[in-house]
Amino acid sequence: MSAPRAFVQWLTCRVRIVVLAGGYGGARFLRGLLGAVPDAQVTAVVNTGDDVTVHGLRICPDLDTIMYTLGGGLDEERGWGRVAETFAVRDELNAYGVGPSWFGLGDRDLATHLVRTQMMAAGYPLSAVTAALCDRWKPGVTLLPMSDDRVETHVTVDEPDAGRRAIHFQEWWVRYGAALPAEAIVPVGAAQAKPGPGVLEAIAEADVIVLPPSNPIVSVGVILAVPGVREALRAAPAPLVGVSPIISGAPVRGMADQCLRSAGIEISAEAVGRHYGARSAPGDGLLDAWLVDTADAGTEVPGVRVVPRPLLMPNPAEAATLAAAALEVARAVG
Amino acid sequence: MSAPRAFVQWLTCRVRIVVLAGGYGGARFLRGLLGAVPDAQVTAVVNTGDDVTVHGLRICPDLDTIMYTLGGGLDEERGWGRVAETFAVRDELNAYGVGPSWFGLGDRDLATHLVRTQMMAAGYPLSAVTAALCDRWKPGVTLLPMSDDRVETHVTVDEPDAGRRAIHFQEWWVRYGAALPAEAIVPVGAAQAKPGPGVLEAIAEADVIVLPPSNPIVSVGVILAVPGVREALRAAPAPLVGVSPIISGAPVRGMADQCLRSAGIEISAEAVGRHYGARSAPGDGLLDAWLVDTADAGTEVPGVRVVPRPLLMPNPAEAATLAAAALEVARAVG
Repeated sequence: MSAPRAFVQWLTCRVRIVVLAGGYGGARFLRGLLGAVPDAQVTAVVNTGDDVTVHGLRICPDLDTIMYTLGGGLDEERGWGRVAETFAVRDELNAYGVGPSWFGLGDRDLATHLVRTQMMAAGYPLSAVTAALCDRWKPGVTLLPMSDDRVETHVTVDEPDAGRRAIHFQEWWVRYGAALPAEAIVPVGAAQAKPGPGVLEAIAEADVIVLPPSNPIVSVGVILAVPGVREALRAAPAPLVGVSPIISGAPVRGMADQCLRSAGIEISAEAVGRHYGARSAPGDGLLDAWLVDTADAGTEVPGVRVVPRPLLMPNPAEAATLAAAALEVARAVG
Repeated sequence: MSAPRAFVQWLTCRVRIVVLAGGYGGARFLRGLLGAVPDAQVTAVVNTGDDVTVHGLRICPDLDTIMYTLGGGLDEERGWGRVAETFAVRDELNAYGVGPSWFGLGDRDLATHLVRTQMMAAGYPLSAVTAALCDRWKPGVTLLPMSDDRVETHVTVDEPDAGRRAIHFQEWWVRYGAALPAEAIVPVGAAQAKPGPGVLEAIAEADVIVLPPSNPIVSVGVILAVPGVREALRAAPAPLVGVSPIISGAPVRGMADQCLRSAGIEISAEAVGRHYGARSAPGDGLLDAWLVDTADAGTEVPGVRVVPRPLLMPNPAEAATLAAAALEVARAVG
């Protein structure tokens, strides 16, 4: 990749980058970002709507996925949980007949939840707990929960046998593989939540803001549901670049299509770009630029500069190239 | 072993036996008892003064040792915890720098504590939790916590450097190997505790009551510190037989000597027998009979029938022989 000299100078400063992240896609993008600009001050504002209490343990899947990925502890094959994981506790809980058996609670992972649960029981907010856990993992970015207030994404499903009911996002996602049609996806508690400490400040002080290829509904969408976040993004002086999680009409990974469908959004890079909308337009749009895959060249989002680039991140090097492209585009529109 | 016909007939009825038990010695004796009289209705009233909260998990060492031993899940080599145990969670907690590192929290064992902690957080008393856990383990005896109220045995130690302080019994026992001289051993909360559901009834309805070779101070002694238990034992119609935990001036296992020393009791079968005392005498004595090892023949406890028998329980068969001997002696003095 070649870049203009001014851009390279900008990158060699301690450029401040804010990324609104879910788990898997957010973590991969962040790793690429650290590869591209090791000296950057990166702040990840992380979705906590997936958080769930299982066996009395407070579990934060997105925070942990990012922390483990950047700290070298993730099971890269599986894409979640700890490498070299064992499942003795889960097997024992099953032997006691204590559910939920569908939740993959690993032994190593469980220690993280034990520490978190204890600290929260002692009165520490999630942001402080996250900082304490990161003392060990040293992810190289500042991980900020989107909020210290409890937000849980629930999914309303309607089955012929079981009737209409709201289940936790984790149950819908993990137990049912997002295969139950979702009538609604609701971040319960988001409307009453306050942005976590440092979130609005990081956005206001950023040099670049990125929406990585995380799930637009249940990851980025839930962060945006916290009052004040969207307003801060629209008011921020930094350029805001989004990266499409959809390539050629299909999600790169995960089941973002099911989530988009429930929100009435077409499964395309263009539809997701239009869902985020243009920051330059009146209303609540966010994007200055929108990176789509080269396969989606021709995508049009009114008021937004659409840039086709290779979006797949099969390895950290490709992720770094993508992150550098996002920064370059940000610089160009900023 | 030969036994008179009337004794054998008595045993083949569903004789009701109550055992006041600590962990290791109590569990071994109970297994012997089930081997000797499989049809007996055995109730173990179990010490809960060793219970401790670690990493937010409520741990009941004596209840679990008995449950695992009789349910076939104990690590027999180690004498505590689960067989085929792993320690992934403990290692991770250590990696987080979260203590106590001296507590041997196994992964399989941890599942038991998770279930217990959750049930207690939901409002179930320890007795109900214990019954629920035993649904899986089917120990063959009724396990009754001595109390549903929280009692924790603390040990007052005085070190030149650290000064006088009270530490949890588990810390004294496990971390310091009972090597710090104990100025006092105090079952905190015992005086305010009520006997657990069924405890006094089981004692009143028993055909035989046994004090197995558990620690006289921190196991049996703590059970006796719950108001009403000693009175119920003295008033019970059943014969009460004790088995000495001391052979030839030394504890069979564990560090009962340190505990006895702190209570000013000589390390001998005779001194422990006299510590328990004669139920026939005025005061608060408990014993009708006292089994001592053949090596301690000649032991005298005023008002108590002292019977020398082999007390070692190297295997379940020897334990069954000892249990049968205890029952035979009970029958003889009853």
